[in-house]
Amino acid sequence: MERITSRSNPLTGHIRKLIKDRSYRRQCGEFVCDGVKMLEEGLKWKAEFTSVVLTQGLEVPLPEQGRIVEVPASLMASLSPMKAPQGVLFTCRLPEQRSPERLTGRTYLVLDGLQDPGNVGTIWRSASAFGADGLILTGNSADPYNWKAARASMGAVFRLPVWTLTCSELKALCRVSGLPLYGTALREDTEDLRSLSGAPCVLAVGSEGRGLSQELLSLCDKTLKIPMDPGCESLNAAMAATVALWERYRCL
Amino acid sequence: MERITSRSNPLTGHIRKLIKDRSYRRQCGEFVCDGVKMLEEGLKWKAEFTSVVLTQGLEVPLPEQGRIVEVPASLMASLSPMKAPQGVLFTCRLPEQRSPERLTGRTYLVLDGLQDPGNVGTIWRSASAFGADGLILTGNSADPYNWKAARASMGAVFRLPVWTLTCSELKALCRVSGLPLYGTALREDTEDLRSLSGAPCVLAVGSEGRGLSQELLSLCDKTLKIPMDPGCESLNAAMAATVALWERYRCL
Repeated sequence: MERITSRSNPLTGHIRKLIKDRSYRRQCGEFVCDGVKMLEEGLKWKAEFTSVVLTQGLEVPLPEQGRIVEVPASLMASLSPMKAPQGVLFTCRLPEQRSPERLTGRTYLVLDGLQDPGNVGTIWRSASAFGADGLILTGNSADPYNWKAARASMGAVFRLPVWTLTCSELKALCRVSGLPLYGTALREDTEDLRSLSGAPCVLAVGSEGRGLSQELLSLCDKTLKIPMDPGCESLNAAMAATVALWERYRCL
Repeated sequence: MERITSRSNPLTGHIRKLIKDRSYRRQCGEFVCDGVKMLEEGLKWKAEFTSVVLTQGLEVPLPEQGRIVEVPASLMASLSPMKAPQGVLFTCRLPEQRSPERLTGRTYLVLDGLQDPGNVGTIWRSASAFGADGLILTGNSADPYNWKAARASMGAVFRLPVWTLTCSELKALCRVSGLPLYGTALREDTEDLRSLSGAPCVLAVGSEGRGLSQELLSLCDKTLKIPMDPGCESLNAAMAATVALWERYRCL
């Protein structure tokens, strides 16, 4: 096993930059995951590992491809983005970023302007649990390959595709795929979430503070609301997305 | 309007201690909320204000009772627990802490060992949105009157009662109220969440890492699972609680 002890080694510099810099991730076609659970998920879902860095003496299952590098605990502490590092982090290949020419699944979820990577990851996890066929990010949503998003996704990062699109690209993709676009928002045409049939569709949820952008809202074929007790104005964005996904999943 | 400029004023010392110290909150019967939205919710739901501290020049609606104190922005910055203080925080009376002798509503949610105050608050908000009649905390759950929990509750702190009980107190309360206790967990008797009828019940959700404690699980009359795609093991705890609450609310 390879061993690194210097903080200025090229690999550790590369990993630090991958952790911090979204455009560097795109440029290199790699991203970073941290922790034992993520490693297990990566192995289970056949992520394409490029390197695994582990603290000396830690025993974990390892992939067959990629560099395997042992480091002292002090170096791991300075490298890991986590407050309490678990002793293993790794880099792997970014999946294909281009969206397909057509959406052929039944359920897609759009997150519009969700800036918190933890929220994006948590919703990704729910989307995977409730059988969505893909996640689409619009507006200035967080990078799903930020380590916090990947971590909160609990492995969905390795199994459910995600694409970043502009609103007009999204609308064109819906049109060519013959899928209606539904937004969770209040408008004159708003219907109860429970009116969703099992027919294929694309569901869009906005950010907590601002909801769906005007641009995306104007492209929606219909809007849906989650009924709730009078006196409550709203749900947390991740809760709203998860309830919409469950409502769809429960009826399929 | 009263004005304070010194950081060592008794009121600011009192507020700092209320923010940090759970037992001091109980001893004084007060808790702290931060931000304009919380102030509006407190006014709307008739919280019993004991003091409001605001940055000089900020124009916000104010309660009729309690001390109103203006401070310089620098003092607010040192007092507020938020990274970006909004310029107003306040103290108000803790509601009655004792649980009722009987639960007379239809739906109660138990959180068992949920240690993250933000998660507790987010679920409290969902419970309020989906018509629960009360929230019950068991195990070593976070204090719901921690400012982060109150904040994430988005005002549910002022409208939906919460009680902290031991597992055996909870079971006794269920028994005397004639309510069954259902846990979201896997056991031989586990049923699909969708089998929930509209009959009154108490639903228990455990922490993300450990699920329901053995003690609470052994007291459950039935266990429920949220069906999900094979390959996904679990949902985030707040998502699981919210889906269970919605499933109940949608059928009422």
